[in-house]
Amino acid sequence: MTRAADTIRRSIVLKRRPAGEPSPADFEQIEDAIPAPAAGEVVTRTIWLSIDPYMRGRLREEQTYAVAIQLGEVMTGETVGEVIASGHPNFAAGDVVVGARGWQSHTVSQGEALTKLPRHGVPLSAYLGVLGMPGATAYAGVSEICKPLKGETMVVSAASGAVGSVAGQLAKRAGARVVGVAGGSEKCLWVQDSLGFDDCVDHRSLDLPRELRAACPNGIDAYFENVGGAVQAAVFDQLNPFARVAMCGMVSQYNAEALPPGPNLGFVVGKRVLIQGFIVSDKPERMTDWRRIAAPWVADGSLIYREDVVEGLENAPEALTGILAGRNFGKLLVRVGPDPA
Amino acid sequence: MTRAADTIRRSIVLKRRPAGEPSPADFEQIEDAIPAPAAGEVVTRTIWLSIDPYMRGRLREEQTYAVAIQLGEVMTGETVGEVIASGHPNFAAGDVVVGARGWQSHTVSQGEALTKLPRHGVPLSAYLGVLGMPGATAYAGVSEICKPLKGETMVVSAASGAVGSVAGQLAKRAGARVVGVAGGSEKCLWVQDSLGFDDCVDHRSLDLPRELRAACPNGIDAYFENVGGAVQAAVFDQLNPFARVAMCGMVSQYNAEALPPGPNLGFVVGKRVLIQGFIVSDKPERMTDWRRIAAPWVADGSLIYREDVVEGLENAPEALTGILAGRNFGKLLVRVGPDPA
Repeated sequence: MTRAADTIRRSIVLKRRPAGEPSPADFEQIEDAIPAPAAGEVVTRTIWLSIDPYMRGRLREEQTYAVAIQLGEVMTGETVGEVIASGHPNFAAGDVVVGARGWQSHTVSQGEALTKLPRHGVPLSAYLGVLGMPGATAYAGVSEICKPLKGETMVVSAASGAVGSVAGQLAKRAGARVVGVAGGSEKCLWVQDSLGFDDCVDHRSLDLPRELRAACPNGIDAYFENVGGAVQAAVFDQLNPFARVAMCGMVSQYNAEALPPGPNLGFVVGKRVLIQGFIVSDKPERMTDWRRIAAPWVADGSLIYREDVVEGLENAPEALTGILAGRNFGKLLVRVGPDPA
Repeated sequence: MTRAADTIRRSIVLKRRPAGEPSPADFEQIEDAIPAPAAGEVVTRTIWLSIDPYMRGRLREEQTYAVAIQLGEVMTGETVGEVIASGHPNFAAGDVVVGARGWQSHTVSQGEALTKLPRHGVPLSAYLGVLGMPGATAYAGVSEICKPLKGETMVVSAASGAVGSVAGQLAKRAGARVVGVAGGSEKCLWVQDSLGFDDCVDHRSLDLPRELRAACPNGIDAYFENVGGAVQAAVFDQLNPFARVAMCGMVSQYNAEALPPGPNLGFVVGKRVLIQGFIVSDKPERMTDWRRIAAPWVADGSLIYREDVVEGLENAPEALTGILAGRNFGKLLVRVGPDPA
């Protein structure tokens, strides 16, 4: 957290692959000297580190769509940082950058995948949440797959999370009735009162299908899927003909050792449903487009977001455990270092 | 079968809803007088009746995408017939028409949903199969959802059937490697040797996943789904990133009393898979477009098809039982009356 003794770099590496829920004991903090930049290199100090559910997949031995983290390797993750030394022509000390620099207090790179941040008058942390990868993910799923129309009903699971909160607000802007699903009454209240969703169902309720039906009297035309499991089953049963399902994630099973069976897909034929998976980074222009579209909304306060801040890099492993259990409330961030002076 | 005593109309009606596999005892043949046309009406005699797997869904009490058949009601079905009397300005005796006229020797209608057949020098039965609803279904699924590219691999289940045989030939025309799945060596041989698929896997083989993998060494980029069940599971496991799945039907479960669970959909996210259901009749222009495109291919013999003909309207119920069990080999048709003189 402090910048004192700015000669030591702290990094969190994977010590062993978790079975089920990851725990802090699966990680280890190591220290070395902050590197000096060679020609063409940039050294940054990390200000903010983003914690996201997809990170659980990186801990598995088998590769999914991205390369698995190896034992002893630094955990990946999106960060906002400040350039403290540069041998790279495009970067200078004092530049603020966003990129995938990992769970480290300081990083060295060739500047690939570092983007200098324009200043829109918004807090730097926003570039990891509402204006970052989660926001762009919501934008991609809503605009390219869910495509909610005025008067249609769209359901968003993990509605109080970094992705779901933006997805629902985008559907509201499109004129749809928007129903969230979230864990617990505090989150549900915030989704309705602060985000302006039309309704929000607690996924822990005793009769989720019935509550969902009450919230969606005209059925469900679009679903932004973040969780899988029982929520998915309840939503699928209530889909209307020609419904669209954006498959963004299924966090309910990220810790599972064996995957449970899923829905019988007969309804997909009869109802002409479209189910499509996507990963935001497949099209880098989504991020650029989204920042341009949404920065004014963040600046003028019309796009609401909430952050859940954990202090100190050393607490990142516990934060990851928490997000997989739904214990965060809002975009989960680790404060690694202070904002630039 | 005969036109003798052309005063009696025979109709097959639903007597009771089948539990599981339908049997001829679930139906009943009734007779009445062939109606005379009132002003604006058309009377046709049926020449060919099409038997298709989707008909099983019409026997269920609960409605799917189309209206359920009521007890005592005539079974629906596509037919080719000849106008024998007309009070309709657009139809005259001797016209040959295709339409959904049901399991009847003679029908009376206002001419809605009757299409006069142009003569392309192809057998009339072709308008119920390769140039009819099954052919247009294959066209819709391949051109709108599977979109196979040159060098990609597309798998087609029920590959020797009316839909699958066309779907695979369309993918071959697009330059894809095409692998069929069919039941038994006789069908598989025909799919390879006559239809020209690159390979065909017997779904009854002891190790379907292994055989499929051997036939698809570069994975599967597109899947035309007609069957569900174990074939679906094996194909889904071998899908490549960005694969497309056209959900046309799941005949393996049409007789099921309770639907089995399906695939866990986690792979849809990681592999960015698109799964889309469709029903050909949602866009009537598909049929018109397809007839225009495919009639020359049928006439010049470059689009191969095979028919499995059952003689006599009274045998339609048993034919339906057979198609659901995969006992037909090629497009299943009932010969109800002779071709026009």
